[in-house]
Amino acid sequence: MAMTSVYKYMLFCNTTLLLLLLQQQQQLCSGLSLDTVRDFLTREEDTIVFSLIERAKYPLNPPAYYVPAHFAGLRHDASFAELFVRESEAVQAKAGRYQSQQEIPFFPSRVRPLTLAPPYNFTRELYPAAAPVNVNDEIWRIYFTLLLPLLAKNGDDGSYAATVASDLVCLQALSRRINYGRYVAEVKFTGDQQNYTTLIRNKDKDALMKLLTSEAQEDAVKRRVQKKATVFGRNVTLDGPGETGDSNNGRASFKVEPAVVYKLYDQWVIPLTKKVELKYLLRRLD
Amino acid sequence: MAMTSVYKYMLFCNTTLLLLLLQQQQQLCSGLSLDTVRDFLTREEDTIVFSLIERAKYPLNPPAYYVPAHFAGLRHDASFAELFVRESEAVQAKAGRYQSQQEIPFFPSRVRPLTLAPPYNFTRELYPAAAPVNVNDEIWRIYFTLLLPLLAKNGDDGSYAATVASDLVCLQALSRRINYGRYVAEVKFTGDQQNYTTLIRNKDKDALMKLLTSEAQEDAVKRRVQKKATVFGRNVTLDGPGETGDSNNGRASFKVEPAVVYKLYDQWVIPLTKKVELKYLLRRLD
Repeated sequence: MAMTSVYKYMLFCNTTLLLLLLQQQQQLCSGLSLDTVRDFLTREEDTIVFSLIERAKYPLNPPAYYVPAHFAGLRHDASFAELFVRESEAVQAKAGRYQSQQEIPFFPSRVRPLTLAPPYNFTRELYPAAAPVNVNDEIWRIYFTLLLPLLAKNGDDGSYAATVASDLVCLQALSRRINYGRYVAEVKFTGDQQNYTTLIRNKDKDALMKLLTSEAQEDAVKRRVQKKATVFGRNVTLDGPGETGDSNNGRASFKVEPAVVYKLYDQWVIPLTKKVELKYLLRRLD
Repeated sequence: MAMTSVYKYMLFCNTTLLLLLLQQQQQLCSGLSLDTVRDFLTREEDTIVFSLIERAKYPLNPPAYYVPAHFAGLRHDASFAELFVRESEAVQAKAGRYQSQQEIPFFPSRVRPLTLAPPYNFTRELYPAAAPVNVNDEIWRIYFTLLLPLLAKNGDDGSYAATVASDLVCLQALSRRINYGRYVAEVKFTGDQQNYTTLIRNKDKDALMKLLTSEAQEDAVKRRVQKKATVFGRNVTLDGPGETGDSNNGRASFKVEPAVVYKLYDQWVIPLTKKVELKYLLRRLD
């Protein structure tokens, strides 16, 4: 009887160890870990800040965003910016951009099949049923209606193509960053399967959101991107100041307001990323 | 007799003043001045450094640059990168990018007519016979054979489309900056017409090049872009250091080597810009 207990205990220990190793191996095989995910997100901050600074180089250029009167209601009920993004995404689809799960087009229905790209065998790190989760529609709407007016000065210099090309770079960077929430969720899920499985089965969105939230972490991210905007957006001169922009008349001047970048992360990037994480998790057991 | 001399002198003064005012007016009308030209070039430095840092995010990804064996010698004797640039430029041409004289495509023969863009009446600031001058062929060759190996780490992660999209951003930034030499030359020409006209008529390339060169100015530009690479290319952390990159183990680490950006300007950007200036001037009286 005592022997049986010992065997039972050893079996329990072994199984626990085995599960732990399997879990670790799964994370290693997929190349995903909390560290790689964090490194990716931190590097993407630079990409986003650069892209915003580059868009701010051009004035608002309103004709690029109107739906022309003779288009409205017709089949081509789209602004110049939308037409440009559709055509550019078609080229990028042919070039295989969306073969990588990290990239999601804004207009997938128009995407032609891959014909141009060298072959490459991508590892599929996401759970297939949950991989298509994205919030590109919301990113599109927020970018054009809320963010762009905070970035670009009023004016029209006619450089519509260069302007919307830089819009596309911003959109792609934001989409990649925000929809990367799928990877964040996958790593968190594999790191704590039991807990997440229960909450997902119960569709307990509030508890899941609580588990996904770290206010200290989020606060650090917001302050860091604001700092990046001050470092990357200042006018660098040979004998200029250190960190904090031009000090003409004692006031710092930046190419994009650091407060706007803080707001972007505070109100849109971080909440939308968590929305993606939640949507992904709710499909993680399908 | 004395009266005649006074009239002659007054006439001379008047004419000089008139010519000076006309020259100023010409510069004002075209919106070009040495100051606006310098501001443009300084701002483009940021764009170039950002674009290099963004390209350096991806590994070299060699399959994007080979001419596939079954392509060689055929009509499609082109690398994936070239095909991608051709197709992207066709979209951008439809979108009117090359309606602005500041933008010159790498593959103009394939450019379809403008069909997509809102109309805009661009001012033509360049002298028509000299406006098409550009060195895009050289920029293309230097970028892929000399610069890219200094930027990107060895490796292949399959993200060919995103990689060559960032190549295109680099190429466009370099092309805009270098071919802006046409504007520099136009401003210098209008500021000192008599001198330049004589040298152009004599096809005196050496004297023209001497007139176009300011070593002190060039040295300042090279040191400034190197500084920009250290400021924009460092890892920004909340409690990180000021100007000079990460100090892991006391050594700074940057996303693109500042020395590479110095070299880019020293060996390619500045000499090619002056080459454009010279070519433009030699056609300025045609």
